[in-house]
Amino acid sequence: MSSMRTQYCGLVTEELLGQTVSLCGWVHRRRDHGGVIFIDLRDREGLVQVVCHPDQVEAFKAAEHVRNEYCLRITGTVNNRLEGTINNNLKSGKIEVVATAVEVLNPSVPVPFQLDDDNLSETTRLTHRVLDLRRQQMQDNLRLRYRVSMEVRKYLDALGFIDIETPMLTKSTPEGARDYLVPSRVNPGNFFALPQSPQLFKQLLMVSNFDRYYQITKCFRDEDLRADRQPEFTQIDCETSFLTEQEIRDLFEDMMRTVFRNTKGIELPNPFPVMDFATAMGMYGSDKPDMRVKLQFTELTDVMKSVEFKVFNAAANLPNGRVVGLRVPQGGSMPRSEIDAYTQFVAIYGAKGLAYIKVNEKAKGRDGLQSPIVKNLDDAALAQILERTGAEDGDLIFFGADKAKVVNDAIGALRIKIGHSEFGKKAGLFDDAWKPLWVVDFPMFEYDEEDDRWTATHHPFTAPKDGHEDMLESNPGACLAKAYDMVLNGWELGGGSIRIHREEVQSKVFRALKIGAEEAQLKFGFLLDALQYGAPPHGGLAFGLDRLVTLMTGSESIRDVIAFPKTQRAQDLLTNAPSEVDEKQLKELHIRLRAAEPKVA
Amino acid sequence: MSSMRTQYCGLVTEELLGQTVSLCGWVHRRRDHGGVIFIDLRDREGLVQVVCHPDQVEAFKAAEHVRNEYCLRITGTVNNRLEGTINNNLKSGKIEVVATAVEVLNPSVPVPFQLDDDNLSETTRLTHRVLDLRRQQMQDNLRLRYRVSMEVRKYLDALGFIDIETPMLTKSTPEGARDYLVPSRVNPGNFFALPQSPQLFKQLLMVSNFDRYYQITKCFRDEDLRADRQPEFTQIDCETSFLTEQEIRDLFEDMMRTVFRNTKGIELPNPFPVMDFATAMGMYGSDKPDMRVKLQFTELTDVMKSVEFKVFNAAANLPNGRVVGLRVPQGGSMPRSEIDAYTQFVAIYGAKGLAYIKVNEKAKGRDGLQSPIVKNLDDAALAQILERTGAEDGDLIFFGADKAKVVNDAIGALRIKIGHSEFGKKAGLFDDAWKPLWVVDFPMFEYDEEDDRWTATHHPFTAPKDGHEDMLESNPGACLAKAYDMVLNGWELGGGSIRIHREEVQSKVFRALKIGAEEAQLKFGFLLDALQYGAPPHGGLAFGLDRLVTLMTGSESIRDVIAFPKTQRAQDLLTNAPSEVDEKQLKELHIRLRAAEPKVA
Repeated sequence: MSSMRTQYCGLVTEELLGQTVSLCGWVHRRRDHGGVIFIDLRDREGLVQVVCHPDQVEAFKAAEHVRNEYCLRITGTVNNRLEGTINNNLKSGKIEVVATAVEVLNPSVPVPFQLDDDNLSETTRLTHRVLDLRRQQMQDNLRLRYRVSMEVRKYLDALGFIDIETPMLTKSTPEGARDYLVPSRVNPGNFFALPQSPQLFKQLLMVSNFDRYYQITKCFRDEDLRADRQPEFTQIDCETSFLTEQEIRDLFEDMMRTVFRNTKGIELPNPFPVMDFATAMGMYGSDKPDMRVKLQFTELTDVMKSVEFKVFNAAANLPNGRVVGLRVPQGGSMPRSEIDAYTQFVAIYGAKGLAYIKVNEKAKGRDGLQSPIVKNLDDAALAQILERTGAEDGDLIFFGADKAKVVNDAIGALRIKIGHSEFGKKAGLFDDAWKPLWVVDFPMFEYDEEDDRWTATHHPFTAPKDGHEDMLESNPGACLAKAYDMVLNGWELGGGSIRIHREEVQSKVFRALKIGAEEAQLKFGFLLDALQYGAPPHGGLAFGLDRLVTLMTGSESIRDVIAFPKTQRAQDLLTNAPSEVDEKQLKELHIRLRAAEPKVA
Repeated sequence: MSSMRTQYCGLVTEELLGQTVSLCGWVHRRRDHGGVIFIDLRDREGLVQVVCHPDQVEAFKAAEHVRNEYCLRITGTVNNRLEGTINNNLKSGKIEVVATAVEVLNPSVPVPFQLDDDNLSETTRLTHRVLDLRRQQMQDNLRLRYRVSMEVRKYLDALGFIDIETPMLTKSTPEGARDYLVPSRVNPGNFFALPQSPQLFKQLLMVSNFDRYYQITKCFRDEDLRADRQPEFTQIDCETSFLTEQEIRDLFEDMMRTVFRNTKGIELPNPFPVMDFATAMGMYGSDKPDMRVKLQFTELTDVMKSVEFKVFNAAANLPNGRVVGLRVPQGGSMPRSEIDAYTQFVAIYGAKGLAYIKVNEKAKGRDGLQSPIVKNLDDAALAQILERTGAEDGDLIFFGADKAKVVNDAIGALRIKIGHSEFGKKAGLFDDAWKPLWVVDFPMFEYDEEDDRWTATHHPFTAPKDGHEDMLESNPGACLAKAYDMVLNGWELGGGSIRIHREEVQSKVFRALKIGAEEAQLKFGFLLDALQYGAPPHGGLAFGLDRLVTLMTGSESIRDVIAFPKTQRAQDLLTNAPSEVDEKQLKELHIRLRAAEPKVA
C-alpha cells in the first residue's frame, strides 16, 4: 500500500504465508519468551504477532529496546503459528511475522495508563485524549460514526438530496436556548451568533428551489451541560419541498433502517409504529417512550375526583392534576426494600410519595388487597383500579398523583427503572430489542406559566394541522402541529415538521406567540419576505448524530462518540480551552472584560 | 415521486407522451397567445411548457391569475409540441403539458428583478439572496459544489480515509491570522477561538492511530476581505500516516483528476508537472504561476551589477535586489499606448517604471534595438539580454529592476496581464487549458523584516527536508521544507506538507522561530506531549473548496459558489448579521462594549 508498508497489521492472514511483508504500527505488548521477543504490533485494523529471533542480530537488538507504544516499521516473513498458539479472536491469529528488520520510527515515553484499562476516570481520558483515542472502543466508535454519516450521505444522495453549507456566523435571535456570540471586529458593537440549527436557512433554500437539502453540520447551544449534551453537537439536517408529512416520515424511517442495516446489520421494524402525542403522554407519561418496557400507565384521574383519600382527590381536582396507576405484573413479590428505593427514586422527579397496592387475591375484593391506602378508597374506586389496570393476583400497582408534569416525570421514570431492573428483566417486562416509534400530532403551543404566555412546542415555523389554522389565536391550546419525532428505545433520535409556507399563517403564529409585528419583522423579516415569493410547501427533519451513534454503540456518554469533546464544564482538557486572550485581541473586538468576578473553579 | 408530483418539470420528455403528469414548480414566464395561456413552469431540473386552453374552464381561470414566481401544482397530459415550436435547448423542448388542473400552492408578490437579469448589483443579489439563488447560475454552481464534495468523499472513502469531526470551539493561539473569539459564559474571562484550520487536531488524530483522516469543514479567519476571501471558508482537510511526500502528492493529484473527470468531464494531465519553489520564483516571480501563459522571466541580475544604467545596477546590487527581462514574442507590434498602460499597471505593485527594448533587427546589433535605455547599456549587457531571452526580430522585452519582491509581483502580474490580453491570445502566448502544477521545496522560513525574525513559510509544524534539520537554527534561510502546493491556472488550490513527528525536531523549529520553551509549552504543549508517545510519520494537505469550485465554474467571486456569503464588510445582508445584542447576553458572557466609537458605515 505504500513504500513504508505493504499491509495493515490487523489484516495479515494466512493468505500471505511465506511472503515478505512490511508493517507499521505501535507496540501493543512486548514480551521475552525463551530467548525470543514477541511484539504485538497494532495499527488501526488490529494486531499482529511479530517474532524476533536472536539470529536476526540487528532486528533482535532493536527489538530489545522497544517499549509499549513505540512506533515501529517491521519487515518480515509470514509464518504459521505453532499449534496451540493460534488466537481465533484475531484476523491475524493463525499467523505470525518473523522479523528480519525492526526500525523504530519514533520512541514513546512511558504511557500514563494501560490502553486496555476500562476503569479510567473521564478527566484522565480527556486530558490524555490522544492516547485514549488509541483504545479499541474509541477507534470502533469513531469509525462507526463515520460509517453512519457516510451511509446517510449515500442514501440521501441517491434520492437527489444535496448538501448545501449554511453559515456558521449568523444572526442572534434570543429565543429558546442561549446563543454563543462572536464579536465583530469590522462592525463595532455588533455580534454574530453561532447557529443553534440551520432551520431558517434550510427553509430559505426550499424557497430558493433547491427542492431537497441535507447537511451534516455543527450546531451550538450555550446551555448547562448534561451527560447527553455538548456545547457543539452535530445534526443531520434535512429538508424537502412538495412532500406530505407521511411521505417525509416514510423516507426518513427507511433511511434509518438502511443505516442500521448497512452499519450494524440490524433490521429495524418496517414500518415504525406511530403514536400520537396525547396517547404517548397518556400511556407512558413521555413523548419519547421506551417501548422496550412493557408497562403502561392506567388513567385514574376521573375515578379519583370524588374519593375520600385526599392525596388522590386533591391531585385529581387540580386544573393540571393527574392520577395514574402503573401495574407491575408479578410485582407483588418485590421486597419492601425495593419499593422503598423506588419511593426515594420518584422523589427526584418531585413526587411526594409512592402509593401502591399489592394484589394478593383479587377474588377476595378489598380483603385481597394489601396497602396502606386501601382503607381510604371506596369499593367503586377499587373496582375501577382493578378493572382498568387489568391487575391479576400477584401484581403490584404503583400510583402517581400530583400535577400532571410531576406524575408523568416520576411515574414515567419509574416505569423505565422497573423495566430495566433485574426484576423487570426476569419478569419479562423488558424486550431487549430496537423499538423505534414515531410520535406525532404534537400540540402547537405549550403554556409557559412563569411568563404567562404560549410558547412554541417545536419552533414557531411549524405548520398547524389542516383545519387548526383558525384556532391559532382563538384556542391555541387545542392546536395540533404537523410535527413528528423519531424515538428509539426512549431516546429522541430526531424531530421535524411540516413548515409554514404561507406568510399570513406565519404572521398568525407570531401573533399567537405574542411576537409583535415589529419584533417579527426585526428578527424574522427575511423569512416573512421569503414566504411572499411563492414559497413551496416544505418540511424536514433533523437527527442528532451524536445521540444516534451513542445509542448504536451502547456508549454511556456522547463524549465517547466525539473525538475531542468538552467536559460538563464546557472545557477542552486537552488543549486547555477556553483560555484567556490578549488585551489587544479584546480591543480589536471593541469589548472589555467586566470587573473581575470570583472565578468559579 | 410523491403524491404532489409525478415528475420534475425539467425532466418531462417525449417518453411520457399521452400520459398524465403532476408537476410542481414556479412560473418562470406566462404569456397569452391566441386565447391560450402558456406557462413556463420551472423546478430545479429545468423548465417545461404548460398550455392552458379555455375549454378547461377551472384550470384556465386559475391560470389567468398567476404571475411570475407563483408556486403551482399542475396536472395535465403530455403532448407533442407543434412543428416549429420545438425548443432543442430544453430537455422537455419537444413536448408540452396540456393542463387539466392548475392549483396555486402559494402566490408571489412581484419580484424586485428579473431572474435572468445578468447585471444585478451584488448588494441587490445578496439582499434578495433567496430569489438570487433561484437563478440558473446559482443553482448550477451549488449543485456542482455538492458534486465536487461528494466525489471527494467517495474517492477518499474508497482509500480508507475516514471523516472525523474536530472542534469548532477551540483554543486561541494568536499566530498568523486573527482569530474569531467566542466568550465563555461558564468560564468567566475566558474565550474560545473558532478554528483557522483543524491542523493540530488532525495531527493528533494521526498520533491516535486513525491512519487516514479527512474532513470537509468550516475554517475561520478574521482578516480584511478580498474577492477570494470570506470570514468562514470551507476546507477539504486531509491527513495520513506512513506515506512519503511523493505518495501523498500522487494520491491527491489522482483525487483531483477524478473529481474533474467525474464532475466536469475534464481530463487533467497525468502526472501533474512538478516545479521547485526556487524555479517558480525565478521563472515566473510567483509560487503559483499560471502555466497557461507562455512567458517567462529571464534572470539578468548578475549581468546588471556593473552596467552604467543606474536603475538596473542599483537594483542588481541591492541585497534583495533583482533584475529580470520578460520577452514578449511579437511584442514589438504593441502600440505605445498599450506599453504606457502596462507601465501604469505595474505601478500598482510598486514598480517605479517599466523599461523595455523593442528588437527591430537583431542582426544590426545596438542599432536594431529601439528603446530609451539602450544608450545606457554596454554591448556586452545587450548581447547577454538578447542571448538569454532568446529574443527574435519583432519581439519586445520588458524589464523589472527593484527589490526582488517588487520585481516578482510587478513583472509576475505583467506576465499574466499580457498573457490574458487580446494581444497575448492572438500571439499564441495563452494556452486555454487546465494547467495544474505542484510547487515543492518551499523554504522553511521567511524573514520578517518588520519584526526582525524568521517566520514559518507554511506553519511551524512542517518538516524540514531530510538533511536540513541541522540547519534549522544555524542557517534557517537555507532550510527547505517538505511542503507542497497544488496550483491550477494561477490559483493555489491547496497546500500541505509532511509534518514534524519527532518532539526534538519540533522543539528545534520553535527555537528557530524564537518561540521560547515556556511559550511553546503554553500554546502547543498538547502537541509536544503527543509527539512523545510514538507519533507516526505523517503528512497531509488542505484544499480550499470555495476556491476550487469558483475556478471550476469560472465564477468571478467565491460569493457565487456559497449559498449565503458575507459581503466584503463581513456582513450578511439577508439576515442582517452581525447585529446588536441584549445587554443581558453580554452580562452573561462577562463582557461589556468599549466606549462607543464612531461606527464605520
